[in-house]
Amino acid sequence: QRGRVTLVGGGPGPAGLLTLAGAAALRTADVVVCDRLAPLSTLRELAPGAEVIDVAKVPRGRSTSQEAINTILVDRARAGQHVVRLKGGDPFVFGRGGEEAIACADAGVPVSVIPGVTSSVAGPALAGIPLTHRGVAQGFSVVSGHVPPGSPESTVDYAALARAGTTLVLLMAVATLPAILEALVEAGLDPATPAATVADAGMPTQRVVTATASTLADVVRQSGLGAPAITVVGSVVGLQPLGVGLESAQ
Amino acid sequence: QRGRVTLVGGGPGPAGLLTLAGAAALRTADVVVCDRLAPLSTLRELAPGAEVIDVAKVPRGRSTSQEAINTILVDRARAGQHVVRLKGGDPFVFGRGGEEAIACADAGVPVSVIPGVTSSVAGPALAGIPLTHRGVAQGFSVVSGHVPPGSPESTVDYAALARAGTTLVLLMAVATLPAILEALVEAGLDPATPAATVADAGMPTQRVVTATASTLADVVRQSGLGAPAITVVGSVVGLQPLGVGLESAQ
Repeated sequence: QRGRVTLVGGGPGPAGLLTLAGAAALRTADVVVCDRLAPLSTLRELAPGAEVIDVAKVPRGRSTSQEAINTILVDRARAGQHVVRLKGGDPFVFGRGGEEAIACADAGVPVSVIPGVTSSVAGPALAGIPLTHRGVAQGFSVVSGHVPPGSPESTVDYAALARAGTTLVLLMAVATLPAILEALVEAGLDPATPAATVADAGMPTQRVVTATASTLADVVRQSGLGAPAITVVGSVVGLQPLGVGLESAQ
Repeated sequence: QRGRVTLVGGGPGPAGLLTLAGAAALRTADVVVCDRLAPLSTLRELAPGAEVIDVAKVPRGRSTSQEAINTILVDRARAGQHVVRLKGGDPFVFGRGGEEAIACADAGVPVSVIPGVTSSVAGPALAGIPLTHRGVAQGFSVVSGHVPPGSPESTVDYAALARAGTTLVLLMAVATLPAILEALVEAGLDPATPAATVADAGMPTQRVVTATASTLADVVRQSGLGAPAITVVGSVVGLQPLGVGLESAQ
């Protein structure tokens, strides 16, 4: 049997939001490479015979964490194993799945991808917030807030996003939330625009706070919400009290 | 047993991209309401005992199609049935799931949502295009192109999106593609920006064409690609030749 790598999107957290194809890949895995055991509490059940490597714990010497992960994927596949690289959310949405796919392809290792439920959409949905809504929002923008606006590393123009007319979804933006919201309002976003932060989306510990673009940062700070959290800015947040919640996915 | 409605995201097409929770909901459904039988070829297998209503075929008299669908969901739930509303992609990404959830909530019918794999992310992924990539794209914007730029119905500012620095994903934009790409380039988007259109993503009939922001519209027209199709505009398209493809999801 020839070794190969399958990048699997594990969804935002609840095991029910894994895909059927993702579960099937886990069942045939010789080794599962994941960042932490958290995303799927039932991982052992889904892949009972597989070795599990938590790459958060892999010693990496002089290489970066990502290089160390790439090496594991390639080495194990070259040894003839079916390697499942299990990621939270979708592998290609801030998951570095592209980098891992390139590393495999460069090494001549067959690699395929099974998309997953992205937290950027499901997180708001599980708080009852639809990212699009007829007559309200014709699109949405998802941005990583791991660096603040104006940082040399930032490739996002928040002033443009403030005018784009799309619902804005911010991931990895708890620390940078004050700076990002301020940049949006300075660029012309209505400070009264509804905004919400969802922490631990879909988990029993899920918490949601709702405010406006001008007040959300303070509300989040006062409420003590921490990562992982997703912030939504846009009129769709005003639709939130739907009574919609996650029921079957767990 | 009290009736209820579950909005289920069926994913972009391949049955393997349905979630475990979505499949579980189908197994307990008394009635499945779907737009066409297409999205899940294995629907009958997943919900063998359920009545299937294809709402594309429901006579609607003087009500709109959406009103007729809302009425079916509410009436069946009030009759004590578990109604699964199966949608392509994710229910809250251009799926009118929000409208249906509101209709149920207004009628006092319990409603929950099981997010799905959105075509806006999975379509590009299945063509090997990651929407984000470290150092290349820090975010992405998803827009429905069902109306052209400048239309009174359009709530999107394409000039702003051209400057936002995010990968742009256009859904329902085959007919409007020339106008949208022209608007983006006029607003300053580099005409040499890589761009691709993926038709029938994840299906055996999947086709992908790659060009640039200035040439894609002609290439799509000449290739005869039709809906459903997803267009991606951004430097991540240049990463496309990964050899990544859908393997396990089918």
